[in-house]
Amino acid sequence: MAPHILRIDCPDEPGLVHKITGVLYNAGYNVLSNQEFVDLESQHFFMRTAFEGPTTPDRVVSYLEQILPKNAVVKLTAGEHQPLVIMATTEAHCLGDLLIRYYSGELPGEIRAVVSNHEKLKSLVEQFGIPFHCISHQNLERTVHEDRVADVLAGYTPEYIVLAKYMRILSPKFVARYPDRMINIHHSFLPAFIGAKPYHQAHERGVKIIGATAHIVTDDLDTGPIIAQGVIPVNHTHTAAAMVQAGRDVEKIVLARAVKLVLEERVFLHGNRTIIFE
Amino acid sequence: MAPHILRIDCPDEPGLVHKITGVLYNAGYNVLSNQEFVDLESQHFFMRTAFEGPTTPDRVVSYLEQILPKNAVVKLTAGEHQPLVIMATTEAHCLGDLLIRYYSGELPGEIRAVVSNHEKLKSLVEQFGIPFHCISHQNLERTVHEDRVADVLAGYTPEYIVLAKYMRILSPKFVARYPDRMINIHHSFLPAFIGAKPYHQAHERGVKIIGATAHIVTDDLDTGPIIAQGVIPVNHTHTAAAMVQAGRDVEKIVLARAVKLVLEERVFLHGNRTIIFE
Amino acid sequence: MAPHILRIDCPDEPGLVHKITGVLYNAGYNVLSNQEFVDLESQHFFMRTAFEGPTTPDRVVSYLEQILPKNAVVKLTAGEHQPLVIMATTEAHCLGDLLIRYYSGELPGEIRAVVSNHEKLKSLVEQFGIPFHCISHQNLERTVHEDRVADVLAGYTPEYIVLAKYMRILSPKFVARYPDRMINIHHSFLPAFIGAKPYHQAHERGVKIIGATAHIVTDDLDTGPIIAQGVIPVNHTHTAAAMVQAGRDVEKIVLARAVKLVLEERVFLHGNRTIIFE
Amino acid sequence: MAPHILRIDCPDEPGLVHKITGVLYNAGYNVLSNQEFVDLESQHFFMRTAFEGPTTPDRVVSYLEQILPKNAVVKLTAGEHQPLVIMATTEAHCLGDLLIRYYSGELPGEIRAVVSNHEKLKSLVEQFGIPFHCISHQNLERTVHEDRVADVLAGYTPEYIVLAKYMRILSPKFVARYPDRMINIHHSFLPAFIGAKPYHQAHERGVKIIGATAHIVTDDLDTGPIIAQGVIPVNHTHTAAAMVQAGRDVEKIVLARAVKLVLEERVFLHGNRTIIFE
Repeated sequence: MAPHILRIDCPDEPGLVHKITGVLYNAGYNVLSNQEFVDLESQHFFMRTAFEGPTTPDRVVSYLEQILPKNAVVKLTAGEHQPLVIMATTEAHCLGDLLIRYYSGELPGEIRAVVSNHEKLKSLVEQFGIPFHCISHQNLERTVHEDRVADVLAGYTPEYIVLAKYMRILSPKFVARYPDRMINIHHSFLPAFIGAKPYHQAHERGVKIIGATAHIVTDDLDTGPIIAQGVIPVNHTHTAAAMVQAGRDVEKIVLARAVKLVLEERVFLHGNRTIIFE
Repeated sequence: MAPHILRIDCPDEPGLVHKITGVLYNAGYNVLSNQEFVDLESQHFFMRTAFEGPTTPDRVVSYLEQILPKNAVVKLTAGEHQPLVIMATTEAHCLGDLLIRYYSGELPGEIRAVVSNHEKLKSLVEQFGIPFHCISHQNLERTVHEDRVADVLAGYTPEYIVLAKYMRILSPKFVARYPDRMINIHHSFLPAFIGAKPYHQAHERGVKIIGATAHIVTDDLDTGPIIAQGVIPVNHTHTAAAMVQAGRDVEKIVLARAVKLVLEERVFLHGNRTIIFE
Repeated sequence: MAPHILRIDCPDEPGLVHKITGVLYNAGYNVLSNQEFVDLESQHFFMRTAFEGPTTPDRVVSYLEQILPKNAVVKLTAGEHQPLVIMATTEAHCLGDLLIRYYSGELPGEIRAVVSNHEKLKSLVEQFGIPFHCISHQNLERTVHEDRVADVLAGYTPEYIVLAKYMRILSPKFVARYPDRMINIHHSFLPAFIGAKPYHQAHERGVKIIGATAHIVTDDLDTGPIIAQGVIPVNHTHTAAAMVQAGRDVEKIVLARAVKLVLEERVFLHGNRTIIFE
Repeated sequence: MAPHILRIDCPDEPGLVHKITGVLYNAGYNVLSNQEFVDLESQHFFMRTAFEGPTTPDRVVSYLEQILPKNAVVKLTAGEHQPLVIMATTEAHCLGDLLIRYYSGELPGEIRAVVSNHEKLKSLVEQFGIPFHCISHQNLERTVHEDRVADVLAGYTPEYIVLAKYMRILSPKFVARYPDRMINIHHSFLPAFIGAKPYHQAHERGVKIIGATAHIVTDDLDTGPIIAQGVIPVNHTHTAAAMVQAGRDVEKIVLARAVKLVLEERVFLHGNRTIIFE
């Protein structure tokens, strides 16, 4: 049986670890692992605890609320797989990598559907037995297109949206539907090369290392909280096209890592930064 | 003021974190950071806590002994710099790197002396104002040589001995003088290429990555608990000599990292493995 | 149009580059890139040249044979995709990664079939429209099993065999059918942890970095010439099972890299080492 | 004896490798290694050849000029150590690393002096027997200060100036004295975090990897051609100060690598990019 996962996020005050672990200890639960962090600048406390026990921890949250500061955010999950919808455009490497992981049982989530603005990836997705929706943006205003996408997404009640090289900018209105619940892969080592064609920018600048960044989507393009980054060396023999190709391996590994961290309840947002208990 | 560092290492039992943090909380101390780990295979508990408070924590250890399992190992330090002696032979890169860090105030320890079996590094060490002892092994039996080295070391009462490319094998008798307190850098990615001339072995084998390993010295050559490892890529253009040269940068960084981790009380030994709270 | 690729491998002698490039220049070809290496220990010369021109280079090889040392090995290809058969057992990550790359047109080869000693990966392979052969080893002597596998392979006339986590040891007789043409992924940073359960060995040894190695298969288990290696950091929180999972991302990237290098005619074998023109 | 190094940089045309190697072959020289690259976008040719022979290659350059395009840049060196002056401010890690390498004979150059705008590093430099000049910028206009620095530099006739954490911006007039001959280390993974306090910017942005960049100094701050870059992972536990400390190891390794590449005549500038034959 998967352990229970408890997440707590609140202003720091003395004795929090002692009090929280006391609630679990007194209720007879066995703590398997416990990670905490205090951001000293903001005096904010973060904790993730995996624990197990003979009964379901129904009353743990109410006990905790009695001892924690008023505006504490407490989340308790039972390790269940959370539902995802993936959005993509035409590139198969990130999407394909997630599909293979899902097929292998390696992804701690449930891919309910894939939505794309192109037909190209339809056969790849459907051969895995997953619904594929092509919603072309051709001849549609942005808001109309986004509303159609949103309607399809809503039908799957996803906890998270994964943008696996979805190559359209999303409006604040769209982003607001899934606040802090959309994960994007940007094909550069942010904050370098924000925006379009980052590998071409990287080639132009003559960098010796390129990278990829998985981040939470916010209203501002490519500036949301970073979850994971990865890099690979390049040199003068790499054209921009060669960088695109080389970068794919980093993109897919970084995106999959970020998705896994989020699904396992390891990622806390704090302003524009993330606290991640690996 | 540097925070107090508390290290605890004992068989696991329910509620340890709750009880330990309770001792600190009730005594009025403020926990700055707290890391713990339970090795599930051996059911062993490890914890490192940094805390601060208005008074010196004289009685914390005795309070802890009342609540911890009988054979718990508890160590409380006040962040003071611990004394080191470095041993080297003829290569300057690891030694020099530690000397520069010490000069810059970057090393959380006190280099009391350098002992070598060659004269070569004398001027480098002495220009930093650090005593240098050359104890040649020429025409001496191993035990006689080691006894002379041990006498010199003893005069400096070091907490740790750092072998910064000391190229002689140490006898179990010598190692027993500083049990779990000698740190060595081996110039390979252990356990590959144990023993002499690892870069030549690596070249012969045609590997594409080489590395270095910092470990605690035990009786068996190059098999002690590993603290840190690092790697760099190589290719067919690297002769064994080129690997030696390329490897130096990894060796010095890995050794310095391991020494820093040990000096900051972040390394726990557990059988032949290490638990490291970074 | 893909450029022509010329590979030359012969004892070194003065003026080889001058003479070889002269053949191409005088025949009106345009050299796009040129890489050469002389192994000074063995005085052996290696060269890979990409060139293009108005006509097919039918006579280039015969011209070269007139100016090169007698035992020169010359290979000229026109960038065509070479046929592969993949062998696997039950794990999907390496196989799946190759299938996605093949689907995307990213793999410069043609996957003609997958052969496995288990049924498990059948649906994954067939959904990509690729023939899958399960040849169980149950109740069969090794030689009988290998002969059946060999018969199936022979039907596809593969240029290369890729062992994508094929978990059976192959006999010298089998290996001799595809000399220097079988690529294996071993799930350790060779030469550390040769043989079975390398991640369990790595966990036991307490290493801080794990890796994977792609190599040419020879008669001796896990000792063939290395093509590519990759690593990732691990720490005390990784159980052996967690290392297995973390290692998969390295394994698949390293194997795919090795396969691509071989297919692009970038890998030369030289004794137990490889010269690779990236 | 060190081999002769020949560098050629000119517009590409058919047969260049053939013609150039012909000059060396016909003059009786033995090519030890040969690297060339054609930038296809700009149709520009780069070549670095190491060769040896019985006589000094006095006439090779004039022979080459007869066969190369008119505006070819040809440079022939005999592997001699070129003179450097290092500029620094108060941080010891980059400077100290270069000094230790120089002491060990590992740096293929001659450090003639160190110039700083602070007194702090004086004893460190002088204990290595190297002249140290403190030229304070206090109460001086920028141009006056720079003129004084330039006068001191001129006395040492350096081929290259190495900025080892020299924390003042240099005017275009100053830079113009050593065009393409000044190497700087910037403490970020450029082009991210140009300008002041890059680690603080990195912390603010919440990146998961930080880096350092060695580049040729041009008139625009931190935008010159990049020679080498390096990175290390960071996480939420790193304050800006901890990033500063962690970054030092990358800075010193990256700067030393860049200096070595330049001294060994491996770096070609091409617009704002570098071609580097490693």
